[in-house]
Amino acid sequence: MRIIRLYRNWMLLLVSMLLVGQAYAAQSDPLASWNDGKAKAAITQFVQQVTDKNSQYFVPEAERIATFDNDGTLWSEQPMYFQVLFALDRLKTLAPSHPEWKTEEPFASVLKGDVSKLHTEDLVKVIYATHSGMSTDEFDAIVKDWIATAKHPTTGKKYTEMVFQPMLELLDYLRANGFKTFIVSGGGTGFMRAWVEGVYHIPPEQVVGSTFETEFSLVDGKPTLKRMPNFLVNDDKEMKVQEIYERIGRRPIAAFGNSDGDLAMLQWTAAGDGLRLPMYIHHTDDKREWKYDRDSHIGQLNKGLDEATSKGWPMVDMKADWKRIYP
Amino acid sequence: MRIIRLYRNWMLLLVSMLLVGQAYAAQSDPLASWNDGKAKAAITQFVQQVTDKNSQYFVPEAERIATFDNDGTLWSEQPMYFQVLFALDRLKTLAPSHPEWKTEEPFASVLKGDVSKLHTEDLVKVIYATHSGMSTDEFDAIVKDWIATAKHPTTGKKYTEMVFQPMLELLDYLRANGFKTFIVSGGGTGFMRAWVEGVYHIPPEQVVGSTFETEFSLVDGKPTLKRMPNFLVNDDKEMKVQEIYERIGRRPIAAFGNSDGDLAMLQWTAAGDGLRLPMYIHHTDDKREWKYDRDSHIGQLNKGLDEATSKGWPMVDMKADWKRIYP
Repeated sequence: MRIIRLYRNWMLLLVSMLLVGQAYAAQSDPLASWNDGKAKAAITQFVQQVTDKNSQYFVPEAERIATFDNDGTLWSEQPMYFQVLFALDRLKTLAPSHPEWKTEEPFASVLKGDVSKLHTEDLVKVIYATHSGMSTDEFDAIVKDWIATAKHPTTGKKYTEMVFQPMLELLDYLRANGFKTFIVSGGGTGFMRAWVEGVYHIPPEQVVGSTFETEFSLVDGKPTLKRMPNFLVNDDKEMKVQEIYERIGRRPIAAFGNSDGDLAMLQWTAAGDGLRLPMYIHHTDDKREWKYDRDSHIGQLNKGLDEATSKGWPMVDMKADWKRIYP
Repeated sequence: MRIIRLYRNWMLLLVSMLLVGQAYAAQSDPLASWNDGKAKAAITQFVQQVTDKNSQYFVPEAERIATFDNDGTLWSEQPMYFQVLFALDRLKTLAPSHPEWKTEEPFASVLKGDVSKLHTEDLVKVIYATHSGMSTDEFDAIVKDWIATAKHPTTGKKYTEMVFQPMLELLDYLRANGFKTFIVSGGGTGFMRAWVEGVYHIPPEQVVGSTFETEFSLVDGKPTLKRMPNFLVNDDKEMKVQEIYERIGRRPIAAFGNSDGDLAMLQWTAAGDGLRLPMYIHHTDDKREWKYDRDSHIGQLNKGLDEATSKGWPMVDMKADWKRIYP
């Protein structure tokens, strides 16, 4: 009897230990939403090598710079860039105080909901009308208010619920390994900074994006910075590399993007000495997200797909590599 | 006898303790090169308040942004900005391969050592001739080489020996109290980044300065960023505020400058909520450094001096407040 009881107790203990061990393993996997596969292995092996002091590929902490595109890389970007959806929403909010928009194009069409024929120059007009004319503090409050309440037209989710859970884990994983994470995006810095710190844990000073001209003046003795209707930097394609040089001042050792607009950044990253991780997120999941690449009107991935294939850059296949898409 | 010996031993111990104690106190003053006075008190009281969780002026660590002008604030700037002295040195180095400069102005005059009549547009030509045409990596190597060897024309010191010891202590002191320290300077980002990390312990991504246009291209398949002869941003006066908005994305709670070119930055800092520290370094020491303000051709401090006085901003009087100037 005693031996049996002892045996049973031992077995219970053993089973408990196994269960706890499994739970611990699952919990302790920093990339829990990533399926085991080439993409996950490429990331973890890269991080292991650059953080191992005995590796020939070791990189000191201060030089562990990782850059991330935002639209299509950290959150979705269909059927339109979310910042454009913000501009359209904002235009409707402002319409009552702009009766002239009822007849003036492109505003009249947009307010009627007809955005299919919007050309780039129309879009710029809409962006200027909604992104300038106010102080920088006012704009920040406007975006914070929108992002807290607005819903995506097809999923019905809040926009901050459409960030990619596996990428949130990747950001945390890199930071836990001494990386400094930056956004390098075509999106506006003012638009992104209103919410990215809370969502991605990336502070404003690590957000590099497109910028507007601003005007400094003293209004009743109080210094004010007003947003002007003029782009200063359109942070896309080759400009991303220039901005990385001007604003970060170091070449990234890892860079993540999803479109041809990120190709120059990935090339620049790949061309550095030592081990580098230039990585494309390939939108392959038309059930859980969207499926698009070479012919997409948003986030076109054509040249980049060829280059990644020919250079053997590891690529993320969203459908195969990600256990889940959104948090 | 025994009592006397005991007494002597006790006295020795006491004296040793006093000496150690004094040495420790001196060592443990993070602002050891600052004389006790209003300036030092303003700094330490400010830091105490914004870091004290029970203070109404407490500021969370992520928002403790401090910005520093460089020329005249962190290192000397007379008789000319050191970056201009770099350009003049560089012009001489390049002259043998530019025989046309013997007759072409402003190069001919500069090479003859006649820089007194140099106008702004001449200076821009000299800057372009010495700061562009090479890759960003090549420029970085050129500056690193110069800063390691070049000597100041009147002091004979290396330029990095002409940084201000009290300001080095201030940078360390603020960082030890959870501040993130940024340079916001009219100097070129590429020029500063080649050496500021080693000297000020400010990483490249926290250096905001004037920038050049760059051009991205693939040279034999290798991505290259070439410096072009065109200013993108002249980071002075109101532009400093714009760049703080675009690059840092938060309003500083402390800012340090020495000229009218820093006034907008100090005004912007002062106008935020809560406790703020906008602080001018006043060059008052013609023995140990230079003495200049309202009429100086470099680092003019005129409007700024009036504003600091009328607003009651604490000011650093170099002669009175600093025990020593250079390390």
